[in-house]
Amino acid sequence: MTPAAAAPDPGPPTPGELFLGEIRDQPEALRRLLAQEDELARVFQLVSERKPVLVRLVGHGSSDAAASYGVYAFGVLPGWTAMRDSISLTVYYGAQLDLSTSLVVALSQSGQTPDVVEYVERARARGAATVAVTNDPGSELAQAADVTLPLAAGAERAVAASKTYLNQLAALALLAGGAARREVEITDAIRRVAELLEEMLDPLERAVPAIATAFSYVARMYVIGRGIEFATAREIALKLTETCRVAAEPLTATDLAHGPVAALDPLFPVWTIASRDEALPAVVDAAARVREAGATVVASGNAASEIADAAFQLPVPEPPVPLLAPLLSVVPGQLFAAALARAKGLDADNPARLTKITRAR
Amino acid sequence: MTPAAAAPDPGPPTPGELFLGEIRDQPEALRRLLAQEDELARVFQLVSERKPVLVRLVGHGSSDAAASYGVYAFGVLPGWTAMRDSISLTVYYGAQLDLSTSLVVALSQSGQTPDVVEYVERARARGAATVAVTNDPGSELAQAADVTLPLAAGAERAVAASKTYLNQLAALALLAGGAARREVEITDAIRRVAELLEEMLDPLERAVPAIATAFSYVARMYVIGRGIEFATAREIALKLTETCRVAAEPLTATDLAHGPVAALDPLFPVWTIASRDEALPAVVDAAARVREAGATVVASGNAASEIADAAFQLPVPEPPVPLLAPLLSVVPGQLFAAALARAKGLDADNPARLTKITRAR
Repeated sequence: MTPAAAAPDPGPPTPGELFLGEIRDQPEALRRLLAQEDELARVFQLVSERKPVLVRLVGHGSSDAAASYGVYAFGVLPGWTAMRDSISLTVYYGAQLDLSTSLVVALSQSGQTPDVVEYVERARARGAATVAVTNDPGSELAQAADVTLPLAAGAERAVAASKTYLNQLAALALLAGGAARREVEITDAIRRVAELLEEMLDPLERAVPAIATAFSYVARMYVIGRGIEFATAREIALKLTETCRVAAEPLTATDLAHGPVAALDPLFPVWTIASRDEALPAVVDAAARVREAGATVVASGNAASEIADAAFQLPVPEPPVPLLAPLLSVVPGQLFAAALARAKGLDADNPARLTKITRAR
Repeated sequence: MTPAAAAPDPGPPTPGELFLGEIRDQPEALRRLLAQEDELARVFQLVSERKPVLVRLVGHGSSDAAASYGVYAFGVLPGWTAMRDSISLTVYYGAQLDLSTSLVVALSQSGQTPDVVEYVERARARGAATVAVTNDPGSELAQAADVTLPLAAGAERAVAASKTYLNQLAALALLAGGAARREVEITDAIRRVAELLEEMLDPLERAVPAIATAFSYVARMYVIGRGIEFATAREIALKLTETCRVAAEPLTATDLAHGPVAALDPLFPVWTIASRDEALPAVVDAAARVREAGATVVASGNAASEIADAAFQLPVPEPPVPLLAPLLSVVPGQLFAAALARAKGLDADNPARLTKITRAR
């Protein structure tokens, strides 16, 4: 008799339970990231020694949404230029770029995304300093990079990412904070974010099903954010697309005005992420244009109340450092996606045609 | 009696006639760009003198789609790193970036996009070399930059951009060609592209209405491209969105596999841009995944015939230099958008809620 046979078999999880459980685990996941003091110290050292001219962020899917956040984290904290680099330019086109003054930050939950691994191998061979940010410190990606910052989110079994995305944001904030010699302040602020998150999860989880039900027949949405919250718009749109089969497109407030506003009508809802920072006026203006088109507005973020005439509001608390707002702003979108998938009878843990490790290139 | 009174008033144009006329004018528009030998020489001189560490491309809407092309043009030809820079990081967040070794290429048809102008003013003050690429050499943007490369596309009156987008691609290819000391080769190749374009316009214009009619009730689409053709995917998606009110989202072949493939069904068509280059295998794979999901595939580009089981094909000729393929690949999308708008009774010249000069930020 094996030990496993002694315990009652819990059976397969209820559809969506893994995803929801991992969303709820996020405060603890953040604390596990922060607890890795030696690993963080090693990465801070590499980053400050190299003083890169350019930070190149690479990743696909949720990791690419996190990379959008990294552009702002490095830009706002140390004043470094960071870019979401083109993987295909290096891996497919073999462009002869000078990488000797670059820091590469490669993001992959599994550490197995083939062209991210190949990008890091090529970049390191060309003289870039390379950091792997992955949930699997034994992965190919970790082996390919100079140093690894483990996400330490714990096993993520739902196909749709949640806690690994949040820990990627926190890891990028920590890296940027380290580059700006503000690692203590950022670490403390993330610890506070974990507390705020813990307080907000239950009330939000109770609030979303009623709103989600109203969206059962929605086929398309826009999700609008600007500046540091564009990452959140990308990640919420991706959750809605993969778990709820809604064609949700992320747009900056400005993108909207340059074309997509023409496509709106009352059956085309728009989710707006409004946080109290320098980009808020642009988001408020965009939401007003959306309302003029007669579209239904969902407002989330810590400045959700600033969005006039929103049909639904999902506010979140303000973090101690404005740059950390996206760690809280994404959560209403995660919980909404979980609730909408359930309302539509879809299994958020196992969306059609997706696998946890994407090997497609 | 004024002279104007002597001529019969042509009356307002038929809906969509301006857009279609400007699409047809593209071969001549390219030739007008190439004819500006003095202006081109001046810009080539600035670019080669400065030897930038980083090229920062900025623009909104179609200009931002063109910027996606610029990343590859500079990467493939001179091997320079180019990025679509975050405007909000500089203009809203006031990030203290070092721009002294950067070349800024600012793209705006009107030269009046407020935050693009402000970005250029700030970047120039911080030591960047700045080039304005605009259809109005007397515009604010032209005045703000060190030098101007006029698009010379001729007046563009339809709200949806066509010939100014094509000339932006050509201008970026010329700038990158100049940086690689290959300006003569690229100039000759663009001249040949203008000829190919002239030959393909009429047959394509006759081919698209039958296909467009089949899409009259389509509410959402994905447009897939990779590498140099991601710009084309972005621009075709924008045309479909603004002129036909289809929620068309551009995706790289890899983006598709990381989530959106889960949302596909037989009523969710996918437009695939396939060109003969290093990224083609990724696009062929993505199209196969789309077909497995039962979605209808439209294939365009010079390798459209490589896409198995495409319901519709809109092939274009191969240019003399592979990098110039996007100048031809976008045209089926422009003509399709014009035909679909007509089939839906929409005025492609004046989409709802849009104006030719977007002042929103």
